[in-house]
Amino acid sequence: MNSKIDILTEKTIINKYLKKLNLNHKGTFNFENDAAYIKLKKNKKLVITTDSISENLDFFKYDDPKSIANKIVTINLSDLSAMGVDPYAYSLSLFLPNYINKQWLKIFTNQLLKLQKKYNFYLLGGDLSKSNKLSLSASFFGFAKRNKIINQNKINQNNDIWITGNLGDSYAGLQILRKKIKVNDKKSRDYFLKKYYYPKPCLIGSKIANHVKSMKDISDGFIGDLNKMLNNQFGASLDLNKLPTSPKLKKIINNNILFKKNIANCGDNYELIIISNISKRKNILRIANQNNLKISRIGKVTKKLGLQIDSKYLTNISREYDHFL
Amino acid sequence: MNSKIDILTEKTIINKYLKKLNLNHKGTFNFENDAAYIKLKKNKKLVITTDSISENLDFFKYDDPKSIANKIVTINLSDLSAMGVDPYAYSLSLFLPNYINKQWLKIFTNQLLKLQKKYNFYLLGGDLSKSNKLSLSASFFGFAKRNKIINQNKINQNNDIWITGNLGDSYAGLQILRKKIKVNDKKSRDYFLKKYYYPKPCLIGSKIANHVKSMKDISDGFIGDLNKMLNNQFGASLDLNKLPTSPKLKKIINNNILFKKNIANCGDNYELIIISNISKRKNILRIANQNNLKISRIGKVTKKLGLQIDSKYLTNISREYDHFL
Repeated sequence: MNSKIDILTEKTIINKYLKKLNLNHKGTFNFENDAAYIKLKKNKKLVITTDSISENLDFFKYDDPKSIANKIVTINLSDLSAMGVDPYAYSLSLFLPNYINKQWLKIFTNQLLKLQKKYNFYLLGGDLSKSNKLSLSASFFGFAKRNKIINQNKINQNNDIWITGNLGDSYAGLQILRKKIKVNDKKSRDYFLKKYYYPKPCLIGSKIANHVKSMKDISDGFIGDLNKMLNNQFGASLDLNKLPTSPKLKKIINNNILFKKNIANCGDNYELIIISNISKRKNILRIANQNNLKISRIGKVTKKLGLQIDSKYLTNISREYDHFL
Repeated sequence: MNSKIDILTEKTIINKYLKKLNLNHKGTFNFENDAAYIKLKKNKKLVITTDSISENLDFFKYDDPKSIANKIVTINLSDLSAMGVDPYAYSLSLFLPNYINKQWLKIFTNQLLKLQKKYNFYLLGGDLSKSNKLSLSASFFGFAKRNKIINQNKINQNNDIWITGNLGDSYAGLQILRKKIKVNDKKSRDYFLKKYYYPKPCLIGSKIANHVKSMKDISDGFIGDLNKMLNNQFGASLDLNKLPTSPKLKKIINNNILFKKNIANCGDNYELIIISNISKRKNILRIANQNNLKISRIGKVTKKLGLQIDSKYLTNISREYDHFL
């Protein structure tokens, strides 16, 4: 709780002003999860997530509409995946500035259609408004197959901490665009830019849900999102050497262009953090293997609060990314 | 279809670019309704509507946050009502500019809470982003009690056309704010301003649903919305003398400050247009009476296309309000 701080952080707005509006409905998870559910009958729940992206915050003006379509879909699908749910349908609000023309709309909607067919969901409806800045807000819906919905805070000490896929590639792409780093090799540069512009959700959630305790998609950086899962109830011991990175990213880390701690904190990832019982290791590795998914066990949950990283007890690496600031 | 027109109207964007994304799901009503549904089981459907409001378009900068809360709720609740559904829950995306402070958030969320308690729904979740302009997007959810969901185009010739409540009061308020009209009587002025700032949804929808064929909330003007219901399949014969107006509005119409045709075309109304069989007149009047609701029969559906108004056949009064232009 940082409600004494005078600046309006996302946390303050949620805790101090919005939280009262959930009227204590269980399915809202007290707004501590990235998705919520409506209970339909005993064993059926509709999971709902809402996420928005805006020009200058989540993408650049004049970015390829294909890229923007990928982002609004990925940011929402990875939230559903973290709840253990596959997408079913979505609604879309578009705030469109004057520069949006037919060509833009054609490319944008064709890419949405491609993603809809790939991941099997459809557009329910939505809303159009004029705006001076491009913003998109989407609500995605999916059905929970089991009674159990994965929640991001159901963890215990000694649980394993896993990460799916690789971290940092899209962050490297963003740093190239911002001219914060220079990558001379064209092939690597193109690779990172592609990872930044065309993120893909990790949709293992519904397949692995029976074997995990908690999941969260990494939208605001691994450390920040892990801290949200630990929720001041637990700490974690992490081995940053096991932080999963692509061969191309390893190379620029070895050249000191980026550092492991940047990768541990960077946003623009849509991989999952998975927390599970030690007894589930085999099941998790089997399902990952069946789905051609890279998965890395990077540490464990500790009773002691705070983060112990590479055997050193650190606190300063732990910061929560607040994209509202 | 006006897809040959080169400017991007809302209709063009929907028909030419978005429509393909519904993958022919029946519950989307081909994006011709203001809400959609997801079929849950044989007789249960979840109805979903998404609507957004933005600074300068739907409200003025620095408007009372109470008023903005009323607008985002009313615009969505009247869509649900037109489908014959009561609200259950909602998700909310807020795009917040710098001038939003704690005081603003306090008033805004307290008013939301008040409306939630009045109309019985809760906040499921949502999303916060920074923006240079205040925008709000909400998705509202409600359960259809019966298998039948009201749709805006299930009409037939000779059906009655009804309007709930009064039209034009909030429009008069807006015209006062825009300095387009002058109303000297302070009491009347305050009355119209209050109607503009604090619209209320007409929630008769779920109660009257069994007796109607089609409903639509009036968001873009009675004539424009009626035309959407007629959908180029039917026309209508209307008696504008029966257009329901408040005593205060009658007075300024009599003084030629505003005209009936302004009222027939004005937005910022959230009353319902109801179309029903002649055989249902008694039922409709009874339910309106039981719920203390003013309801006015203003005309009938005709086989002949176009609008016949006060026995004259007019086409120029008919214009579709496109709030995207």
